[in-house]
Parts: sequence; C-alpha cells; structure tokens
Amino acid sequence: MKVTIIGMGLIGGSLAIDLKKRGYAEVIMGVGNTKETTQKALDLKLIDRVVTLDEGIAEADLIVLATPIDVMISQLTYILDRVSTQVVTDMGSAKFNLVKSVKDHPNRRRYVPSHPMAGTEYSGPSAAVPNLFDGKTAILCDIEDSDKDAVTLVSRMYDVLKMNIIFMGAENHDVHVAYVSHISHISSFILAQTVLDKEKNEKNIFELASGGFTSTVRLAKSSAKMWIPIFNQNTENIVTVLDSYIHNLQQFRDLIARHDNQQLEQIIKEANRIKDILDAKKQKS
Amino acid sequence: MKVTIIGMGLIGGSLAIDLKKRGYAEVIMGVGNTKETTQKALDLKLIDRVVTLDEGIAEADLIVLATPIDVMISQLTYILDRVSTQVVTDMGSAKFNLVKSVKDHPNRRRYVPSHPMAGTEYSGPSAAVPNLFDGKTAILCDIEDSDKDAVTLVSRMYDVLKMNIIFMGAENHDVHVAYVSHISHISSFILAQTVLDKEKNEKNIFELASGGFTSTVRLAKSSAKMWIPIFNQNTENIVTVLDSYIHNLQQFRDLIARHDNQQLEQIIKEANRIKDILDAKKQKS
Repeated sequence: MKVTIIGMGLIGGSLAIDLKKRGYAEVIMGVGNTKETTQKALDLKLIDRVVTLDEGIAEADLIVLATPIDVMISQLTYILDRVSTQVVTDMGSAKFNLVKSVKDHPNRRRYVPSHPMAGTEYSGPSAAVPNLFDGKTAILCDIEDSDKDAVTLVSRMYDVLKMNIIFMGAENHDVHVAYVSHISHISSFILAQTVLDKEKNEKNIFELASGGFTSTVRLAKSSAKMWIPIFNQNTENIVTVLDSYIHNLQQFRDLIARHDNQQLEQIIKEANRIKDILDAKKQKS
Repeated sequence: MKVTIIGMGLIGGSLAIDLKKRGYAEVIMGVGNTKETTQKALDLKLIDRVVTLDEGIAEADLIVLATPIDVMISQLTYILDRVSTQVVTDMGSAKFNLVKSVKDHPNRRRYVPSHPMAGTEYSGPSAAVPNLFDGKTAILCDIEDSDKDAVTLVSRMYDVLKMNIIFMGAENHDVHVAYVSHISHISSFILAQTVLDKEKNEKNIFELASGGFTSTVRLAKSSAKMWIPIFNQNTENIVTVLDSYIHNLQQFRDLIARHDNQQLEQIIKEANRIKDILDAKKQKS
C-alpha cells in the first residue's frame, strides 16, 4: 500500500516511522510546507520520497492529513475534489468544523475523520519517534458517513499503530477533547506565563522548581502554530470548560482565603478520585 | 549519630532510608501518630525503633519534623522546650509562620528551618522510596538565627541526600514556593475537579485522557492532610498567585472567544520560554 502523509511534524513523522516499520505501507510519500522540512524528513528516513500535494493525492491508496487544523480545513475539500478510490483521513484535534466543511461533498464517503490521542510537547520532523501511538486511544468520528472499505482501511492503520479504537460523533468528540486535552494545555500555558511574569522580579525563582511544577507546565512547551487553530476551531467548547475551570478556581481561592477547611477537604478528596480513574485506565492499557 | 524522625510518611520514610543507607545515621528513631503507621515503618525497616516524642527528643542528636505543617507548628515549641545540645530541623513547605512561632524561644538557635523540594503525589510510610532527594534543591531559611554547628549538621544531612542547598529568608521562601509548587497543586486539583464534574454526565470521558492530561493532573492525587495546612499557612501568597493565574486565564479565555490570534501567539510564545529554563535547570542538575 502507498500512503501519502501531508505534514512532516511530530505526528506525521511518527506515523511514517511505524507504518513503514510494521509493514502497513510499502511506500510513504511526504508533503511538507517548506523544502527544509521535507528535506529533514528525507534525511531522517521518515519518508521514501517527497511529492507535491497533487502527486501525493494521485499516487496514494491512503492520504493522511497531519497538518495544523487550519491548514487541514483549507486542504480537505481540495483533496476530496481529486480522489476516486483513495481513502482520506486526518489526525486533527478538533472535528466538528472540519467535518462540516465537506458535509455535502460528493466524495465525502471516502473520508474518515479520526484523531489519535497521542503526542508530546515537541514539534517538527526531528520530534518524530517510534511507538508514539502504542496503547493510546484513537477516535473515529461519524463512521456512518464513510464507506465501509474506507473505515476498514483506517481502522487497520490504527490496529497496526496498536491503538484502542473508539467511535464517536464529531460534535461529541469536540466536547470531550476540550475537557481531557485542550484545557490541560491552556492551564499549562497560563501557569508558565504567571510564573514567568513573576520571575522578572524574582530572578532565581526556578531554582526551586520541583518535579511537580515541571510536570504541570510540561505542555506549556507546545507550539502556537498547532494550538491557536485548535482554539479557533473548538472555541465554544473550550470557552465553556474554561469558564467552569475559572469558576472552580475562584471558589477554591475564596475557600483558602477564609480558611474553610471542611469545604477544601471535600474538593480535594473529590479531586483525589482522579487517581482511581487513571490507575484503572493504566491497568487496562 | 542518632536521628529522630517525627512523621512516618513519604518524606520522613524516604529520609530514613537514605540517611541510614548512606551512613549519616547509625540509629533512626521514629515517632508516628498511630500505632499502625509506626508498625508499618518498622515492618518496612524504615526505622530501627519506635519511640515516644519525649524519648525521641531526649535520645537524638538530630530531630527532624516531617509531619503536616499544622502538626509541626503545634510541636516545635514543645520540642525546643526540651532540647539542649540537640539540633532540630523541619521539612515544611511553608516557613514564615512556623519560624515566627518560635522567634523568641530561648532555644531558637538550635533550630534550622529547612525545606527539601522533593516529593511525589503519594503519601504514607509505604510511599517512601530511596533516592527521592537526589539532585533536587533544599532551602535553608534564616540561617543567621541558628547556631553554626546546627547549620553545619543540617547542611551535611542535605549533602548526604545529594541535594543542592540554597539559602533564603523565610518570608521570601514562602513567596517563591507559592509560585513554583503550591499553585501547581491547586491548578491540578481544580483541573481534576472540573473534568470529574463533567464526567458525571459524560461517562466515558476518561477513555480519551492522553499523556498530556495525565501529567497535568498528576498532583491532584496529593493528600488533603498535607495540603490544607499549607494553604492555611501560606494563605496570602497563595491568594496573590491565584489571583494572577485567574486573571491571566480570564484574559486568555477572552482572546480565544474573540479569536485574537496575534495576542494568543504572543502569550504562547512567552509561555514556551519555560522550555529553555527547565532544560537549563535539567542540564545543571
């Protein structure tokens, strides 16, 4: 099978490594937005050859969009205009608007919206690593609107990546990821911002940064190029979660200010439940 | 040397393991708040024997307070009332009120306020692990108010624990840890609370929890018994940091709502600076 990957970043590159190594793809073609990026992908042996978008569409059995989500939206219609038997999927972190943009496209059924819940805080082709997806969850959206053979091909790809596949409507997907992914990134960005602001006056503040701090701000290293388009696409859900988060923080702040230890204890013990949930998830995977 | 550790939790237990194994202490005596805890500490061979607080004070060269900080405040005066040549230190995460509580004590100079910036999200004697402190930072506060031999003994303990020692006033310490430790815990507790609230209606939300989410909520597993006393002791600083954090979140939320991508990019790129700072710290340690 021939696979074209559009986007030579962390996700596109990591995908290329595993699909080739595990025999899912005989040939991996890469489309990038700069010569530098595609050359790097070639040098790192992530892909077999660099192609133009049109070549990549024409020659592939499977086309995978792994660009920032604003680029995906601008490319998806263009790609569907040009496919016949090929299958198209994407790795985007927000789905509703992307899917809506091709709702009435005559080739809509060749497209399988998907989202592998995997990543690191690093970006670009040199951030690509093997086994990135192993044991994580992949979401396939609105599969009733795709051809069966297309769903099968994309499901097989995620099987090869050793991911647990779950199915979900695009709208529901966007609500869920706002809670378990998008909000974590915002909380990290703003935590880093708040401490860096303070650091301007307190030079050695980071001498004290412990493991706890490091793990909470890890995601603050994530790239603006990937995340701003996600904020633009999933605005309503993200704003809703942020409003809850800010409300809960404000309430906790007031409880601390007036030393209401009983209420503080109740909230912390409720938050502690996260342990059982994550431990159960870990054991399952 | 004989060391008495008061508090048989993660910190007290981990301290006991390394001080014994690395030859700093010949005998480790343990004081716990329940029979169950001290028996567990004995069973796990963390300590050589269980003593009462009075025995522990009388027989030790060094007395280490490793209890929740509200317990420390209630015990420190009692302990200083009973020491002569012994040295007393503590592992508390907030310092100003603790130090103030013994400001005019005739034996104040036998006490060295300290804070090893190390820990995990687990608690109790069975959470104790070797090498917990290696390469981390320990803060010694207000050393001008302690006897030289006392500072030397405590510094030597942290050397044996392979920690980088820095010196700081108690007041300044409390400001710094509000930014690089306390706020991280609050942000995690509330993130967990917010997502768990949502989960009541959306059963399978955690199927999607990725590595990013897991690392951001890790600290939400931390115990109320340890953290509420810290919030009570460092209230003013924590409320100040939380107010900045909430203000910055609200601003970011508004920028997302009105798709102000230029401002969003500026904040994210500023937050990305955390990468250089943490990488530099990592290389140093």
